[in-house]
Amino acid sequence: MYAERLARTRAAMADAGVDVLLASVGPDLPYLIGYEAMPLPRLTMLVVPRDAPATLVIPRLEVARVVERGDLFAIRGWDETEDPVAIVADLCGPARTAAVGDQTWARHVVDLVDRMPSTRLRRADLITGPLRARKDAFEIDQLRAAGAAADRVAAQLQAGEVRMVGRTEAEVSEEISRRLLAEGHAHVNFAIVAAGANAASPHHHASDRVIQAGEVVLCDFGGVYATPDGTPGYCSDTTRMFWVGGTPPAEFVELYDVLHRAQAAAVAAAVVGTPCEDVDRAARSIIAEAGYGDAFIHRTGHGIGLFEHEDPYIVAGNREPLVAGNAFSIEPGIYLDGRFGARLEDIVVATADGPEPMNRSDHGLTVLDA
Amino acid sequence: MYAERLARTRAAMADAGVDVLLASVGPDLPYLIGYEAMPLPRLTMLVVPRDAPATLVIPRLEVARVVERGDLFAIRGWDETEDPVAIVADLCGPARTAAVGDQTWARHVVDLVDRMPSTRLRRADLITGPLRARKDAFEIDQLRAAGAAADRVAAQLQAGEVRMVGRTEAEVSEEISRRLLAEGHAHVNFAIVAAGANAASPHHHASDRVIQAGEVVLCDFGGVYATPDGTPGYCSDTTRMFWVGGTPPAEFVELYDVLHRAQAAAVAAAVVGTPCEDVDRAARSIIAEAGYGDAFIHRTGHGIGLFEHEDPYIVAGNREPLVAGNAFSIEPGIYLDGRFGARLEDIVVATADGPEPMNRSDHGLTVLDA
Repeated sequence: MYAERLARTRAAMADAGVDVLLASVGPDLPYLIGYEAMPLPRLTMLVVPRDAPATLVIPRLEVARVVERGDLFAIRGWDETEDPVAIVADLCGPARTAAVGDQTWARHVVDLVDRMPSTRLRRADLITGPLRARKDAFEIDQLRAAGAAADRVAAQLQAGEVRMVGRTEAEVSEEISRRLLAEGHAHVNFAIVAAGANAASPHHHASDRVIQAGEVVLCDFGGVYATPDGTPGYCSDTTRMFWVGGTPPAEFVELYDVLHRAQAAAVAAAVVGTPCEDVDRAARSIIAEAGYGDAFIHRTGHGIGLFEHEDPYIVAGNREPLVAGNAFSIEPGIYLDGRFGARLEDIVVATADGPEPMNRSDHGLTVLDA
Repeated sequence: MYAERLARTRAAMADAGVDVLLASVGPDLPYLIGYEAMPLPRLTMLVVPRDAPATLVIPRLEVARVVERGDLFAIRGWDETEDPVAIVADLCGPARTAAVGDQTWARHVVDLVDRMPSTRLRRADLITGPLRARKDAFEIDQLRAAGAAADRVAAQLQAGEVRMVGRTEAEVSEEISRRLLAEGHAHVNFAIVAAGANAASPHHHASDRVIQAGEVVLCDFGGVYATPDGTPGYCSDTTRMFWVGGTPPAEFVELYDVLHRAQAAAVAAAVVGTPCEDVDRAARSIIAEAGYGDAFIHRTGHGIGLFEHEDPYIVAGNREPLVAGNAFSIEPGIYLDGRFGARLEDIVVATADGPEPMNRSDHGLTVLDA
C-alpha cells in the first residue's frame, strides 16, 4: 500500500515539476509511510526525491518508534548536537523545487530557505492533496467505522442519555469526549457544545455557561478512530441539534427545517463529476431563498481523512469535480447573532453509485425534556 | 500583562531589525494576546508591526471566539472566499524582515513567500523565545500548580493505586491520562508507559504489550494545566521509574543510582548565570564516569511553559546562561538497547534563590508488588 502511494506521489511530482517532497508533522507522513511525526521542535522529515530512494530524518531518540521498511525508506537518526536541516538539505542535493508538507513548522521552513536559497519552495498539498483526497476501499471502511462510532454517541445524546440542562457546556463536552473514546476513538479532536446564543458562533469553545431549559444546544464532535494495527486512524465529524426543555419556538423550527432541507440537498448533489462549488450552491441556494443567506457564513464542507480538514473543500470558487473516493463534510449552518444558530453535518463519500453518508443518526431536531 | 508583553516584543523586534512579527498556531499567540489559534488550515494570524497597531486576522466564523481587546489589537475577520494571506501581506506593507511564529503551517509560509518575495523571513522564536523563556510570578505559579497536579498522579502510581502487571502499556497510559485530567489538567500532552526493553526507547509510544512481573516500567507524562479563567494554560512534565514484581536486579539498581545522582547534580547546577550546557554536563559527566556515557542519547532538558518544548534547551553547545524565571526539564536517561532503560525528570525554575523544583514526588526507584 505504502509503496503504491509513494509511486503515485513520485508520478505527481514529475507532472508538477517537483524534485523533492518533504513531509513532516501532519497527515502526509502517515499517508506515505504509516508513521506520524511527534509535534515537537526536533525535526522529523521524510525526504522523497523524485528519482532516488526516500530517507526518514528523525531524532535518534525516536528511531525505535519507527517500524523499519527498508524497501520504502532509509532511516537517518540525528544526534542532539547535529543540525537536522543540514542533513535534509544534503539529501535534497541540487533540487530546484521542493514541496513542503502543509503543517511543517515555520521554524524548519525558514531554516530550509536559509540553507537552500536557490530552491523554490512549493506546498506539498499540490501533490498530496489530490492523492489523499481519493480514498481507497480500506480508507472508506475506516471512515465508515469512525462515522458509525460518532453516530452511536449522537444516538445516545438523542436518547437523552446525557443530561444537559443545569450542566455547563464544558461538562457536556467532556462527557461527549469520554463517549467518543468509549466507542473506539483513539483521541478526540473537538467536542463543540454551544447553547443558546453561543450556537451562533460556529467554532464556539465549550464554556462554563450553564445550559438552561428552553434553549437550543448545538453538538459538533469528532476524533480519530483507532485502527486495528495502531497505524494513524481516520477522522469522524458530525453535528446534531437539540432543543432542551419545552417546545422550540416556531421561528427556530422553521429555521431548522430550512437547514435540514439544505443539508439533504447538498448530500444529494454530491455526485461524482459535480464541481465542489455546485454542492456548496445546492445548500446555499435553499438557505438564501428562505432569507437566511447572510446567516450562512461558512463554506458547506471540507474534505476529511487522516486529518479533519483537507481536500476537497466544498466552497464557492472550487470548480474541481468530485471524484470517486472523495470524502468530505456537508455541514451548512444558519447563525443569528445574539439569538441562536444551527448546523447539521454528515461526512459523505462520493462513490460510483452516488453519495454514501458515513453518518446516519436521526437528522431531525431532537427535543429533550429538561 | 499582554500590553507589556507586546511592548517587550516590539523592543526586541527593534533590536533584531525585524519589521513585523506574525504569530499563528503555537504558543506565541496565546502569550501575546491570550488567544489560541485553531490548528486547522484556515489561517489565524496576529500581525504585529514594530511601529503600528497589531491586527488579528481570523476566519470570520471564529471571530466570536475572541475576547476583544481594542487596546491591544484590531480584529480583521475574513470570509471563506477571501485570501487571508493577501490580507496579511497588505498589513505587513513594505516590511523588509518578517519573523514568523515557530509552528505556523508551511502552507501559509510558502504562500507568504510568494506574496512578499522581497521580504526576508526569520524565525519568531529569535524574538519571542527569550521573552517567553523568562517566566513571571504568575507563570511560575501556574507551573507550580501544574507540577503539583502531575506529582499527585506520580504519588498515586508510587502508592500502587494503578495496577500495572497484566495490563497493556496503553491501558496504563490511558489511566494516567484520566488521572491527569482528574487532577486539574485541561488536556494531556502525552503519557509514555514503556515496559522492559521498551524503556530503552526514550519517546516510546505506549503499545499493546502486556506488562510482565519482574520488569521495569518507565512513566513519563504531562499535559496542560487548566487556568482559572480559561486562558491557555501551562505544561507539566515528569518521569518516574517503577520495578514491578520481585526484586530489581543489582545491575538495574546500580544504573538507577547513577541516574538519580546525575539528575540531582543537574538540578543543583541549575543556578542563575550558569550556561545551559554546563547544566547538561553536570548530569552527563556522572553518567559517563559510571560507564554509561553512550547510553545517554539525548540532551538533559528543554524549556517549558505554554508549550512543552521551548527555550531554553539544556544541551551541549548552548552557552546561554540561565536567567531568573527560566523553567526547564532536567531529565537525564540511560538506555540499554534490547534490555531496559531509565529516566528521571523534574521541571525546575531558576530563581534568584537557587533552583526550585516544580516536582517533588519521591525520586527513588519504586518497587511494586505484582
